[in-house]
Amino acid sequence: MSDSTSRGGAPSERTRVKRYKWLASYDRKTVEDILDATPLAHVGCMMDGVPFVTPTFFWREKDRVYWHGSAAGRMFQVLEQQDICLTVSLLDGLVVARSAFNFNCNFRSVMLLGRAELIRDETVKVEKLRNFVNGLIPGEWERLRPVHEREVEVTALACLSIAEASCKVRMGPPLDDEDDYAFPSWAGVIPIRYQILPPVPDPRNSPDVAMPQDILKFHLG
Amino acid sequence: MSDSTSRGGAPSERTRVKRYKWLASYDRKTVEDILDATPLAHVGCMMDGVPFVTPTFFWREKDRVYWHGSAAGRMFQVLEQQDICLTVSLLDGLVVARSAFNFNCNFRSVMLLGRAELIRDETVKVEKLRNFVNGLIPGEWERLRPVHEREVEVTALACLSIAEASCKVRMGPPLDDEDDYAFPSWAGVIPIRYQILPPVPDPRNSPDVAMPQDILKFHLG
Repeated sequence: MSDSTSRGGAPSERTRVKRYKWLASYDRKTVEDILDATPLAHVGCMMDGVPFVTPTFFWREKDRVYWHGSAAGRMFQVLEQQDICLTVSLLDGLVVARSAFNFNCNFRSVMLLGRAELIRDETVKVEKLRNFVNGLIPGEWERLRPVHEREVEVTALACLSIAEASCKVRMGPPLDDEDDYAFPSWAGVIPIRYQILPPVPDPRNSPDVAMPQDILKFHLG
Repeated sequence: MSDSTSRGGAPSERTRVKRYKWLASYDRKTVEDILDATPLAHVGCMMDGVPFVTPTFFWREKDRVYWHGSAAGRMFQVLEQQDICLTVSLLDGLVVARSAFNFNCNFRSVMLLGRAELIRDETVKVEKLRNFVNGLIPGEWERLRPVHEREVEVTALACLSIAEASCKVRMGPPLDDEDDYAFPSWAGVIPIRYQILPPVPDPRNSPDVAMPQDILKFHLG
């Protein structure tokens, strides 16, 4: 996936990677669709001189993405003093070509660059966390034990604009050198996707607690 | 996932994150099993003052991981002049707790830190690329059109030791505050995994080309 790059969103000079322009998809909707397809992002942030890559859940609201974690976490201490990168990627398939050189993967990815901000207003924090939970499972926030003030205090919430976005998409069959199509080796795509399995109830659920149907609405991919 | 950290491998001071020690899994086998479970990694590398996070395929051989790409790619130009981070993560489930604060995900992740090296010897490059392809699909390299020298030249191959590794694993049911177990909201886990779908042949395959059974051996997760 590192060998094919294009841009989307409103690119700045540093998101303009010139090679493999044929993968370009500039439109905002493509960027948003990829961001909305998975709750998993990888955040790049310099800590102790190393560009740490931290997997984290995130969510989008309009033109911003949000993620949260323990306020004591190192990332949230240094986030506002540097430009960071938040990358979202979905692996859609293994592309089996007729030559090793043209092996590839089908994927969708978005790279967001910019200066993140911490949200400190506790009312806004609660509102955003509610949107996160209800984005995963509709109406779930209202079914949960209400949040304690202390829980909100020790939770850090970060947000980043999607203004500076680079978008990469590859789909479809292998692209072999024209001369290689006659080569007698099988070529094609092995599709990959996330599968959601049936929910497993906590053994400690009270016997009178039923599973809300909204749990079945969780999806990704 | 950013809120729970532990370490594995042979940790240095910078991989010693103190919180959530209960998730610790120090053994080398756990690290290797996670690295072997998926070909997808995210590499953190400083470029133009930003800690870019690039998704890429990778593979492990003994105590090193490898990844490749276009030699013209920016990452491979600057890789050897800095410490980098390579993170591998697998999302295993959404953990639905009785409070938003205890919502979580089940996951496995490994963070490798250190100085990567480019492998320039073309014989070694070919050998490693063969291991990559055959690691995905047994015997596939020998079925492919043999590589051209030029293809090897324009391919960069990087490797990184797994000596400095931080490993994080969360599994099992939600962990709620003891007082919350009586709260009448459904709790449990929605399991997530990668699903491999039936291979889709390239429409341009010759009619006499059959799919090798080894294609069905591709797996991840």
